[in-house]
Amino acid sequence: MKLYDFKGAPNPRRVRMFLAEKGVSVPVRQVDLMAREQHGDAYRAINPWCTVPVLELDDDTCIREAMTICRYIEAIHPEPALLGTTPVEQAAIGAWEHKFEVDGLIAVGEVLRNSVDAFAGRALPGPVSHEQIPALADRGRRRIAHFMDLLNERLGESGHVAGPGFSVADITAFVAVDFAARVEKDIPDGHPHVKRWHETVGARPSAQA
Amino acid sequence: MKLYDFKGAPNPRRVRMFLAEKGVSVPVRQVDLMAREQHGDAYRAINPWCTVPVLELDDDTCIREAMTICRYIEAIHPEPALLGTTPVEQAAIGAWEHKFEVDGLIAVGEVLRNSVDAFAGRALPGPVSHEQIPALADRGRRRIAHFMDLLNERLGESGHVAGPGFSVADITAFVAVDFAARVEKDIPDGHPHVKRWHETVGARPSAQA
Repeated sequence: MKLYDFKGAPNPRRVRMFLAEKGVSVPVRQVDLMAREQHGDAYRAINPWCTVPVLELDDDTCIREAMTICRYIEAIHPEPALLGTTPVEQAAIGAWEHKFEVDGLIAVGEVLRNSVDAFAGRALPGPVSHEQIPALADRGRRRIAHFMDLLNERLGESGHVAGPGFSVADITAFVAVDFAARVEKDIPDGHPHVKRWHETVGARPSAQA
Repeated sequence: MKLYDFKGAPNPRRVRMFLAEKGVSVPVRQVDLMAREQHGDAYRAINPWCTVPVLELDDDTCIREAMTICRYIEAIHPEPALLGTTPVEQAAIGAWEHKFEVDGLIAVGEVLRNSVDAFAGRALPGPVSHEQIPALADRGRRRIAHFMDLLNERLGESGHVAGPGFSVADITAFVAVDFAARVEKDIPDGHPHVKRWHETVGARPSAQA
């Protein structure tokens, strides 16, 4: 297996954390997104969607998209379970994971891609050029504030995002919180549960992956 | 079990199609999104995210989010498999499903919610009010055009979205194509593979669910 990665991007980080939690080591190939390597012919042959992460299997099958890769890894390395073991547990983890992907990761991405000069003409990932929409960056900042509120509320009632134990929903929310710092939206005051949880998750070795 | 549904919304339709393909009948309770019933206290007790679909189990556990519900149903009713049977097949279906959720369903939702008067102040689903961004509707129209192009390209190389057989990736893409008609983006000329596939999928009994 080989992981196509970019160190500064949040979606590959989700996969790196997931692999580290599994204790699975996979060779990594950096794709230089800042130099637009993902738009070159060589990488398009790997992934015509021009995104990372991609997990390449030994028979050259390429698995695209962060959560799809995590599900594949869970299927071939079930322990420790990060997606839940019973259908009901899997559903709780799946719903919270999706919620914080949309409310957290995607909201931060909206801010970054619609406000930072380096993303001019690249306001969405992928091969198609889209101009920035400043109002979307403004909306994204408000969404991040709501994300932090909802995360704090949730972690006030539950040790981890989807229940008492650590799961992929924690990985997505944790990566989103760190990603938010990139657009100067650190964990705000008055969010003690997020602060406590962020310290706990940040102390796991996988947070350095 | 009980499904909280709204007949006019695309995400509950994905679940209704999924259930119909499984041959599973579930009592349905309509939530009147147009009358903002999803924001009332009664429904917030079911789902504080104020969205449909929700699948309520007999012990009152509420499963939120369309694909999470589909995964739960697949776990308790494995046949016919709509999410794939091997890890590699599951990964292909998962990646294409996610791709067309983002490029299709979400793009159409952006157009509808940012251009139609009925969604003023409700440009995103959920409990938080967001004003419409006209530029986002314009971008969404361009995204729908790219979605149709990519879907046509994909269906030119594959009988169904994620491979030779019907899967949940077809459900998501099919619901997205029908949803696009709501913003006057019918299947454009020069997309014969989408037209062929849309007729084939549309002839399945589940398309009427």
